[in-house]
Amino acid sequence: MAELITIEDPEDPRLRDYLALTDVELRRRREPAEGLFIAEGEKVIRRARQAGYRMRSMLLSSKWIDVMHDVIDEVPAPVYAVAPELAEQVTGYHVHRGALASMQRRPLPEVDGLLAGARRIAVLEGLTDHANLGAVYRSAAALGVDAVLLSPDCADPLYRRAVKVSMGAVFSVPYAVLGSWPQDLEKVRSAGFAVLALTPHQDAVPLAEVSPERLRHSAVMLGSEGHGLSPEALRAADEWVRIPMSHGIDSLNIAAAAAISFYALAGLAED
Amino acid sequence: MAELITIEDPEDPRLRDYLALTDVELRRRREPAEGLFIAEGEKVIRRARQAGYRMRSMLLSSKWIDVMHDVIDEVPAPVYAVAPELAEQVTGYHVHRGALASMQRRPLPEVDGLLAGARRIAVLEGLTDHANLGAVYRSAAALGVDAVLLSPDCADPLYRRAVKVSMGAVFSVPYAVLGSWPQDLEKVRSAGFAVLALTPHQDAVPLAEVSPERLRHSAVMLGSEGHGLSPEALRAADEWVRIPMSHGIDSLNIAAAAAISFYALAGLAED
Repeated sequence: MAELITIEDPEDPRLRDYLALTDVELRRRREPAEGLFIAEGEKVIRRARQAGYRMRSMLLSSKWIDVMHDVIDEVPAPVYAVAPELAEQVTGYHVHRGALASMQRRPLPEVDGLLAGARRIAVLEGLTDHANLGAVYRSAAALGVDAVLLSPDCADPLYRRAVKVSMGAVFSVPYAVLGSWPQDLEKVRSAGFAVLALTPHQDAVPLAEVSPERLRHSAVMLGSEGHGLSPEALRAADEWVRIPMSHGIDSLNIAAAAAISFYALAGLAED
Repeated sequence: MAELITIEDPEDPRLRDYLALTDVELRRRREPAEGLFIAEGEKVIRRARQAGYRMRSMLLSSKWIDVMHDVIDEVPAPVYAVAPELAEQVTGYHVHRGALASMQRRPLPEVDGLLAGARRIAVLEGLTDHANLGAVYRSAAALGVDAVLLSPDCADPLYRRAVKVSMGAVFSVPYAVLGSWPQDLEKVRSAGFAVLALTPHQDAVPLAEVSPERLRHSAVMLGSEGHGLSPEALRAADEWVRIPMSHGIDSLNIAAAAAISFYALAGLAED
């Protein structure tokens, strides 16, 4: 059972994991270096636990202690009960969801192992926006994408906002980071996947017309919203695919494009 | 040509249209009542003009005056040149995009007229989140949805954040608000549309299996992310349709669900 500790001093060193959560630059450095990530809100905290992450501690405003009592009963980690004002002082924002947990990271799986069990995967290049990244994971989980591979410059899927927007899907969809980009796409191809680059380019094949042999093991590759896929990534692909769009439109939001491509490839693969 | 006026007093009454832009409650009352909406950023301002909206005024930090000089040359509205600090004082936030315009609203089209020229439409119930609403419009524009109908409790598509997330698509996709809900769905049906309710319910037909006669004129109806469609809206539909999803997942984000349904119905309708 967790130890329930009331804290009234915002400088208490035990609250260190929760300091300055709104300082994106600071948190992006500290969290991976210290091996932690922050889960926010009851649902997301429960999902992190179900996914097997170890809890370092929990920070609860008092009215959440009842709601979370079963978790408090089960985990050996300390639970800090604080006033909402103190939570705000420490974290830097008003914690609407009233419950925060600091969770211990785990080593990411090896790329080869991840590919061995997968049938449909997503490869993301240069996705630096946490909300978009979280949205892509949420759609991946809902639409049966087995794994996600990230280019080295993607944002951290375990950053608080990505976790929250994904509704915890970053815990359930396994992922790994490719070490050298785009060279490591060769690992994907060697594992038997067709690398399909999603691009609005007119030479690309409409998604609905991708040939069936491409779909037995498909890796759909998506670029960042601002720039799309890099020329290097486009060159490394087996095929270019596109979502048919109306004229005069900039393109879809990356989260919408991801959702559509996951849906389309799932549907085609089932035929 | 616009009059270029340098303003140094944050209390200057000419800046009234731009006051307290971060006060959502205030702006939601004021903007429709005063017949204005705010366009933010060069691209969105240009799109509002292209769509024929009349400019009331523009608020520019000095380095944007060059970028916008062609617009300044063309419009008869006053242009207020201000320091970034003053823009922040007036609006309540740091205006990253450096350019704001106050635009004049127009009467919304009649529902019947809107339906007369349309082939595929979207009907939204209770969408109160401005970012989600904007994302739905952006996908609608990209994926060939001809018009959008809103239930009376939907958010305002011309609210600044909806406009921004839509990338200006709220200007190009015509829309109207249904007066009585869900009774006015009868207007949609009378105009020859099949009303397809998107729901995760297991009795619903997978999108890919919707019968062709439903697709000649289809109205896909989407509910809010938290609650989905109301029982009344579900009862008023001609058919329930669903996106096949993996087990154990809450559902897709509303923007993702909208994008997938627009894509799927467009593809089916083209066959």
